[in-house]
Amino acid sequence: MLVKGENLTTIWFDNTENKVKIIDQRLLPHELKIVNLTTLSDSIYAIKEMQVRGAPLIGVTAAYGMYLASKENSDIDFLIQSGQKLIATRPTAVNLIWSVNKVINKIKESEINNRSDYMLQLANNIRQDDIEVCSKIGDNGLQLLENIYKNKNSTINILTHCNAGWLATVDWGTALSPIFKANKKNIPIHVWVDETRPRNQGFNLTAWELINENISNSLIVDNAGGHIMQKGMVDVCITGTDRTAINGDVCNKIGTYLKALSAYDNNIPFYVAAPISSIDFSISNGIKNIPIEERDEKEVSYMYGLNSKGTVEKISITPKNAKCKNYSFDVTPAKYITKIITEKKIVDANKSSISDLEFL
Amino acid sequence: MLVKGENLTTIWFDNTENKVKIIDQRLLPHELKIVNLTTLSDSIYAIKEMQVRGAPLIGVTAAYGMYLASKENSDIDFLIQSGQKLIATRPTAVNLIWSVNKVINKIKESEINNRSDYMLQLANNIRQDDIEVCSKIGDNGLQLLENIYKNKNSTINILTHCNAGWLATVDWGTALSPIFKANKKNIPIHVWVDETRPRNQGFNLTAWELINENISNSLIVDNAGGHIMQKGMVDVCITGTDRTAINGDVCNKIGTYLKALSAYDNNIPFYVAAPISSIDFSISNGIKNIPIEERDEKEVSYMYGLNSKGTVEKISITPKNAKCKNYSFDVTPAKYITKIITEKKIVDANKSSISDLEFL
Repeated sequence: MLVKGENLTTIWFDNTENKVKIIDQRLLPHELKIVNLTTLSDSIYAIKEMQVRGAPLIGVTAAYGMYLASKENSDIDFLIQSGQKLIATRPTAVNLIWSVNKVINKIKESEINNRSDYMLQLANNIRQDDIEVCSKIGDNGLQLLENIYKNKNSTINILTHCNAGWLATVDWGTALSPIFKANKKNIPIHVWVDETRPRNQGFNLTAWELINENISNSLIVDNAGGHIMQKGMVDVCITGTDRTAINGDVCNKIGTYLKALSAYDNNIPFYVAAPISSIDFSISNGIKNIPIEERDEKEVSYMYGLNSKGTVEKISITPKNAKCKNYSFDVTPAKYITKIITEKKIVDANKSSISDLEFL
Repeated sequence: MLVKGENLTTIWFDNTENKVKIIDQRLLPHELKIVNLTTLSDSIYAIKEMQVRGAPLIGVTAAYGMYLASKENSDIDFLIQSGQKLIATRPTAVNLIWSVNKVINKIKESEINNRSDYMLQLANNIRQDDIEVCSKIGDNGLQLLENIYKNKNSTINILTHCNAGWLATVDWGTALSPIFKANKKNIPIHVWVDETRPRNQGFNLTAWELINENISNSLIVDNAGGHIMQKGMVDVCITGTDRTAINGDVCNKIGTYLKALSAYDNNIPFYVAAPISSIDFSISNGIKNIPIEERDEKEVSYMYGLNSKGTVEKISITPKNAKCKNYSFDVTPAKYITKIITEKKIVDANKSSISDLEFL
């Protein structure tokens, strides 16, 4: 999607330099910095420290991580170990496991002389597939927005939480993909952007994406969603998902559940945009069975932004000796989810509807 | 309550210096600064810019503001005008109107030579009443906590939003008063402190109060409440209120509604601590009729805290050209409120139960 008028993606293999390149998303929106991933360690660091984030992008980055591992040592045992290290970086998003397993299964199946070249090709394919999947999610979600627009015939107000835009994937995004598609069709849209504490992906990433695509948006604190829904200022909510259980429970960025409750209380449709790679067909109950990552409490007690001199600075925002807890995700029970938008079709948040997707 | 082992209140008349003194709460928790209010303008500034905040404390500050106005000019017309200016500072909390009207009615009733002295006495009385009201709310709320402790017999986990501690009143607080009382009775307590964006009263004030009183607490982002309730980590929620409608709808800091929805979804009692001065007996429907203050968007786009040099610094946390919306309060429908704790008694959140309080 557009950054200052130029098309950009979050991760790519640069054939000229022979290097994997990513946007270091930790510096956004204040600085756009492209960095190289040259080793497995670089990839692990990038995922763990959130240079890249978003379930689909984590998956694609892991695929390139496997390729970079193979440049160090292409023995299958080493690659399996490397995959385990990548999977251990973040416990909640299932795409990571999906992507690593996909690569390992492929290399087990094939006898190739130059395994490393083959693994680069696999990673490139996984990247390209992600772009197509996200584009299709956008096409499917667009139908839902077109229906709302047909009834309302004026600006659609959409609330989203965290960042499930192109920065969470390779391009297009998941939750924002229908929004980008609708905008290209000149459907008038206004997006409510949740700040998404503690790491502020809403303000830092979603707002930055929307501003760059010239889509009208307003930034709000995470507390505000209930009020604006109650006052009729939201027509629809769309979020992403880090892992979806087969019963339709959705695990997404902490705070998603609260917004879903409020949408339900105010009869507002709550859609989840989910690539099939984010569905965990092995999990029958999201609340009970999806592991919730707990991250460093410093993510809660420190914030970064631009100081008066225009340079990025970290500040402490808690009293001395304060103790923070930092749960990164929550699970929204299926009953609060109106529809799940996948690349294949739009489904209901229940087992009979979701289980079909495994074999499509 | 205690600050570094010494008892302190939020506002008082210093007889030696002949001055009204307040804590400038904007600098907490990083700096404890006492400032003087010497004019009506000082009082207006203090309320509008949130040197003082919290519905009860705003009311008491307005009473001292009326006294300070009378030192400039004690004519009734001037005082009525001054009262209007004080009321206009913040639209949501009803205590402000209640307090100004109380002072004006009193001076209309009485023929006093030295009106200014009389008004100081009125303000001192309103201050003293607030302390007693809050203490009684604590005693009543304590009963509810004692009941929970009887059943659970281990640490009670309490979630609170914003600051309804002693810093929101003169002393004791409203929502935190039962917690302080329970702590003094050695009931084991752990408090989940919501950050409360955009102004972070939870981290800046509630956490600071609890740490100073040596009460166990954990700081969480506003997004986290749903998850911890779903996981059984919260036994009870207690919040304050800025204005309570006669039907039991409660207007409190933005985000309260989301927590109440989550408490309801997880069968957790949701209590609101409300001095009767915060009940607006003229409003029959909180959602429709309570005005919601919208504040400067800079409160959303800037944050302050300690930089690496240990000095307070403001940083910008939004992309260039971002537009923020800053709604300060929301209304929690009565059906999500388990009980309302007043200084007279504990009532249900409905008209028949609340309307009795007007004449108690």
